[in-house]
Amino acid sequence: MLKPWTLAQARLVEIAAGRAPADLVIRGGIWVNVHTRELIEGMDIAIADGRVAYVGPDAGPSIGPDTQVIEAAGRYMLPGLIDAHMHVESGMLTPAGFAAAVIPHGTTTMFHDPHEIANVLGLQGVRLMRDESLIQPVSMFTQMPSCAPSAPGLETTGSPISEGEVAQAMGWEGIIGLGEMMNFPGVVAGDGQMLAEIAATRAAGKTVGGHYASPDLGRGFHAYVAGGANDDHETTSEAQGIARVRQGMGCMMRLGSAWYDVESQITAITEKGLDPRFFILCTDDCHSGTLVHDGHMDRVVRHAVDCGCDPLVAIQMATINAASHFGLERELGSITPGRRADVILSSDLRTLPIEAVIAQGQLVAENGRLLVDCPRIDWPESARNSVHLGKELAGDDFAVIATGESARVRVIGVVENQAPTRALEADLPIRDGVIEGRDDICQIALVERHRATGGVVNGFVAGFGYQGRVAVASTVAHDSHHMIVVGTDRETMAAAANHLGRIGGGVTVFRDGQELATVPLPIAGLMSDRPATEVAEAAQGIVRAMQDCGCQLNNAYMQHSLLALVVIPELRISDLGIVDVTRFELVDLLV
Amino acid sequence: MLKPWTLAQARLVEIAAGRAPADLVIRGGIWVNVHTRELIEGMDIAIADGRVAYVGPDAGPSIGPDTQVIEAAGRYMLPGLIDAHMHVESGMLTPAGFAAAVIPHGTTTMFHDPHEIANVLGLQGVRLMRDESLIQPVSMFTQMPSCAPSAPGLETTGSPISEGEVAQAMGWEGIIGLGEMMNFPGVVAGDGQMLAEIAATRAAGKTVGGHYASPDLGRGFHAYVAGGANDDHETTSEAQGIARVRQGMGCMMRLGSAWYDVESQITAITEKGLDPRFFILCTDDCHSGTLVHDGHMDRVVRHAVDCGCDPLVAIQMATINAASHFGLERELGSITPGRRADVILSSDLRTLPIEAVIAQGQLVAENGRLLVDCPRIDWPESARNSVHLGKELAGDDFAVIATGESARVRVIGVVENQAPTRALEADLPIRDGVIEGRDDICQIALVERHRATGGVVNGFVAGFGYQGRVAVASTVAHDSHHMIVVGTDRETMAAAANHLGRIGGGVTVFRDGQELATVPLPIAGLMSDRPATEVAEAAQGIVRAMQDCGCQLNNAYMQHSLLALVVIPELRISDLGIVDVTRFELVDLLV
Repeated sequence: MLKPWTLAQARLVEIAAGRAPADLVIRGGIWVNVHTRELIEGMDIAIADGRVAYVGPDAGPSIGPDTQVIEAAGRYMLPGLIDAHMHVESGMLTPAGFAAAVIPHGTTTMFHDPHEIANVLGLQGVRLMRDESLIQPVSMFTQMPSCAPSAPGLETTGSPISEGEVAQAMGWEGIIGLGEMMNFPGVVAGDGQMLAEIAATRAAGKTVGGHYASPDLGRGFHAYVAGGANDDHETTSEAQGIARVRQGMGCMMRLGSAWYDVESQITAITEKGLDPRFFILCTDDCHSGTLVHDGHMDRVVRHAVDCGCDPLVAIQMATINAASHFGLERELGSITPGRRADVILSSDLRTLPIEAVIAQGQLVAENGRLLVDCPRIDWPESARNSVHLGKELAGDDFAVIATGESARVRVIGVVENQAPTRALEADLPIRDGVIEGRDDICQIALVERHRATGGVVNGFVAGFGYQGRVAVASTVAHDSHHMIVVGTDRETMAAAANHLGRIGGGVTVFRDGQELATVPLPIAGLMSDRPATEVAEAAQGIVRAMQDCGCQLNNAYMQHSLLALVVIPELRISDLGIVDVTRFELVDLLV
Repeated sequence: MLKPWTLAQARLVEIAAGRAPADLVIRGGIWVNVHTRELIEGMDIAIADGRVAYVGPDAGPSIGPDTQVIEAAGRYMLPGLIDAHMHVESGMLTPAGFAAAVIPHGTTTMFHDPHEIANVLGLQGVRLMRDESLIQPVSMFTQMPSCAPSAPGLETTGSPISEGEVAQAMGWEGIIGLGEMMNFPGVVAGDGQMLAEIAATRAAGKTVGGHYASPDLGRGFHAYVAGGANDDHETTSEAQGIARVRQGMGCMMRLGSAWYDVESQITAITEKGLDPRFFILCTDDCHSGTLVHDGHMDRVVRHAVDCGCDPLVAIQMATINAASHFGLERELGSITPGRRADVILSSDLRTLPIEAVIAQGQLVAENGRLLVDCPRIDWPESARNSVHLGKELAGDDFAVIATGESARVRVIGVVENQAPTRALEADLPIRDGVIEGRDDICQIALVERHRATGGVVNGFVAGFGYQGRVAVASTVAHDSHHMIVVGTDRETMAAAANHLGRIGGGVTVFRDGQELATVPLPIAGLMSDRPATEVAEAAQGIVRAMQDCGCQLNNAYMQHSLLALVVIPELRISDLGIVDVTRFELVDLLV
């Protein structure tokens, strides 16, 4: 474990003075200096106790018989990259699996908000994520989730987060601040719990993550700013990004698996010439496939450079800007004395090949290969057995009973490549007293899975294009993470749901009562304890199986998992019923 | 008193939302935005509870019947200026008097190190300065002095500061960090007390002021950096300044009454084009005359602009850069929601006339006129009666007894416009068993004044040019602040010294046994409780009197007060004897 700086101080002085040997010396590289924003050639770095002791022209006096020497050989030495805001669960991996996947890409610091597990396991889930984060060979800081449930009164989570728990968590080691305050209407309206959570965070001297998911820059925006959020990653246009920074917030520009918000905002720097110090890069959400095939923060930096950003500025936005934002500028984010020795060796700053990664003074990856263990905690039974259906489901649980020949019902309309849905209506036939789907309208069900109530809320959805007797089920069901089952056949829906109940959660595709593909997610029904490559491959199996079943939507699985997200318009489903998210109220299925 | 942000939060939201009236609205100005580094026209600012609630195009909804309205009328609205490192005592004023003098110049935040009073009164002195700082209408943060005495073993202060006291003070309200760590040889050598003081500061999450007063950038410099100092204001060249920032420190470029270190370093920004965010402006030491006639931080910003710096960058260096350095970026340093409402109105960013100053939401100055009270504490008897001579001094106390016709003695050689002295030697005549000065060599004495020991250390000094029977005495005697008496006549020296003993300290010039001029400094023998204008006038009287006595040296009084500064070469005087500051040891007066 890394010593605090105060315990390393005396040794760092000895090494810097040339009186004692270092643990590691990196020799002969170009120092990417993010404080002055310049390149300095012919530099050595001496490292001890996981921290930088010396950066200068000749670390020779720091090389003793036991000192490890790495030759930079004229390559760039840049600080390890920082992801300023992200959700580990989006990779369907635990912190250990996520770290293992991103370390070879040069990520050495992450600020992650375990919002998803908080919806399943409450504060205990946050603590478990924090526990596994603290033992990684890289720096993983945990943000305390602020809004679980996301929409109080419209959904029920496994265990709601209270303002008292937020205040309590601010005293925990490894908690760096408050996670995305997404209840922006609450803040704007002066909601007591939301303001108290922010105040508790600020009183602890920590950082409040913002999440103002609205293009409006009027009085609502100003009230949200006054409420105390310190950053925002929900900005998607140059004007929105600039507005945040002008008002004293950090603008976190994100490039996730499905978010492309850097290109539209980076013109604030590349064209408008604004001071870049409060612009920060992050990913927010990355699927395992992205991590395995495309990269992580290295991908974001490359993309920023492709968008015309000076590579040094792009690197600042992924290192010192993020460190400063969280008050950690003296602890990490640059290659300077006292800081955690997080260093990447790369032979090109534009294409940014990650040739070697040193984290906290340890060589952790080389040429894409992970060289260290990312330890896992022993996840408890409560986390491993979190899918509580209360009963074996049967086809009848998915039957929508009605009388007459046909019924007019509300239908959730999926829109390709967009998070919002449409609130549709349709006349559906009734057979044997049960409403049946037709054409592209099939059934959707929200299966309660936190308290074993046996509750099933049924509805209809259009847009997936399933053909035959098909069911897709997922316990990743933002944000309260019950189970969403979409299907054309009630028996197959029951089979898929029961399968996930047996394996403790995940995503599965069934046809004609048979399993076609599954990603088991035994931890909280959200995360796998297998490596990212395996998870990415299994997730690819789901995509193929959905396509085989007739679904040609781009990102179809993501659409599926967002259908219970009762904070984004227009129509959604929750454990409490069908939700009109334009008016934030429960509505009847039948019109 | 200003409420903490957490107690203002709910009201700020109400005002920003347009649902409640503000205390103050500033209308129709150009917003100098130090986050984006841009100018934004046609802006209003709404203020409540001393903090900014809203900055935007129309604060109309925030104006109620009791809201004060100030018309910016198209002028620039810039953040109040910050002095990132300074000593209040250099103005011979207490914090209240200093604040009163600088508020009309637009200074709304100061980080001051009460190093001088710490040498006289120890921790109690620090606490008193802190107490008066906390009740000012502007923000005055106190740095805990790190090195009192400056040269342990070579001098005796009134009450030495221990590492335990440093750790204790870090828990006090208003203590922002450690004051200039000037014992750089100690840090480089790994001295336990120095490292412990730094570690205690860093463990408290606070900022360590540096003071590496050496042009050397070799291993000693690197060891000092590794020791944990976070900034340095002792840099005097571009290369030195850049070296600090590259190594992760803040470079504080100073323009004091006698320091001119901005012009030589600002080329790092104006010519080399480095990222300016870690460059910061400060004054370090300003005499009352400078404050009264030339300005304070407004003078520094103007000077930076005159040196070719972009006005917006210069303003950043005197606002947000300093705030960020001390971890206060979310509390002050910009005009953005939640921050202390510190605003200057000015009609030009290059000449920077300070037309109105708002501090913590209160109009505190207008067109050079102070509009508020700067309250004083009731300085206790221990501070008001700090000159303890132990006896009435007589001419004989200044007699250097010797035998023979003449004696070879060491002579402190004053060098005009330089802090270092020269170690001279001279043969002086002996009359009636007492060594006498001749030509420009006169007597110097260090009179112990902290413990009433009655001790007088005698020596000789060359360079002042005094003629006739003259004596100049001062209880400002850096750094241990005993009393320095320089004179050509022993009876006159005794008269001057006794006068200061009676009035509780100050500076005085005597001729032929009569007082010519005096600046009474009754508080710790360092500070006046009179206004800056009066002090500046009295100090000017000292300059004139010294000139009348034959001294034509530039800054003669400053030279006088530095003659006991036993950390700067070559030869000095202390209460323990004559000090060779090239070898850091006491030497005999007689060679």
